[in-house]
Amino acid sequence: MRILGIDPGSLATGYGVVEEQAGSVKRIECGTVRPPRGTPFHQRLSDIHEALSVILQRLAPDEVAVENPFYHKNVHSLLQLGQARAAALLPAIRAGLPVFEYAPREIKQAVVGHGNAEKRQVARMVAMLLHESEPMTSLDSSDALAVAICHAHRSHGTRRYLKTLA
Amino acid sequence: MRILGIDPGSLATGYGVVEEQAGSVKRIECGTVRPPRGTPFHQRLSDIHEALSVILQRLAPDEVAVENPFYHKNVHSLLQLGQARAAALLPAIRAGLPVFEYAPREIKQAVVGHGNAEKRQVARMVAMLLHESEPMTSLDSSDALAVAICHAHRSHGTRRYLKTLA
Repeated sequence: MRILGIDPGSLATGYGVVEEQAGSVKRIECGTVRPPRGTPFHQRLSDIHEALSVILQRLAPDEVAVENPFYHKNVHSLLQLGQARAAALLPAIRAGLPVFEYAPREIKQAVVGHGNAEKRQVARMVAMLLHESEPMTSLDSSDALAVAICHAHRSHGTRRYLKTLA
Repeated sequence: MRILGIDPGSLATGYGVVEEQAGSVKRIECGTVRPPRGTPFHQRLSDIHEALSVILQRLAPDEVAVENPFYHKNVHSLLQLGQARAAALLPAIRAGLPVFEYAPREIKQAVVGHGNAEKRQVARMVAMLLHESEPMTSLDSSDALAVAICHAHRSHGTRRYLKTLA
């Protein structure tokens, strides 16, 4: 199964696509959508929407996973995050792909083994789980890969559990 | 000039289209996009996006106006509002229409004459300004018309001012 993880943000939206097979996960591609500095906010939403549409078509994931933030600095930044998130998710939603949401703690738990890990710890573990020689240089794409890996483990676990019931 | 006002929300998104000519404003159409009760959140975003795409094509506004909220109950509802807002605005942004944002106080000031008006007062004044015999029954579409009227007055004022300079 191919999973697209997204780490949305209006300044930088990370994405990471992994392929999960029998519980093992490998990286297909990752990157960051970063509209040029000074791009007006509404145009950034359009850029993110456009970029994710192209990524969906090119990499054809089966499912999508995204972090569900529970805290943010202020009303303004949270409203911007919500808008960036919808711009990133709408192409997948409209294509009929299932979208799964995970709390930050769940993602850290799945990737590092405990829910209080720091961003750089997550990046190191993401690299290890994907058998990369070095951690991602971009924390945005590393976070996107982390939520994709989290979903890969969850859905593999669920499928295995359902098999034992069958 | 034709203006589309939008009052975004994931449960109900109001819209109102007005035509402004020489400072006078008339209503073209208004309504509320209300996905059926129980529709999952992501599907509601898609419904709002789809509905606004159709409204844009059918009513061909020149500009779009939307309220910029400055306060909300909690992180969860604000994140949902942000997403509904992007779903509603993306069709216009991607069509290249200019989108203008107004603070709640500015809208009330423009429609009622002071910034502390209640929703029902706004609804009554919207009906009066549009020469309707009765206030809108839906407060969502009344709020959408209010932001459209606010933008109509602002842009008429600006055009008149620019004319005095020319």
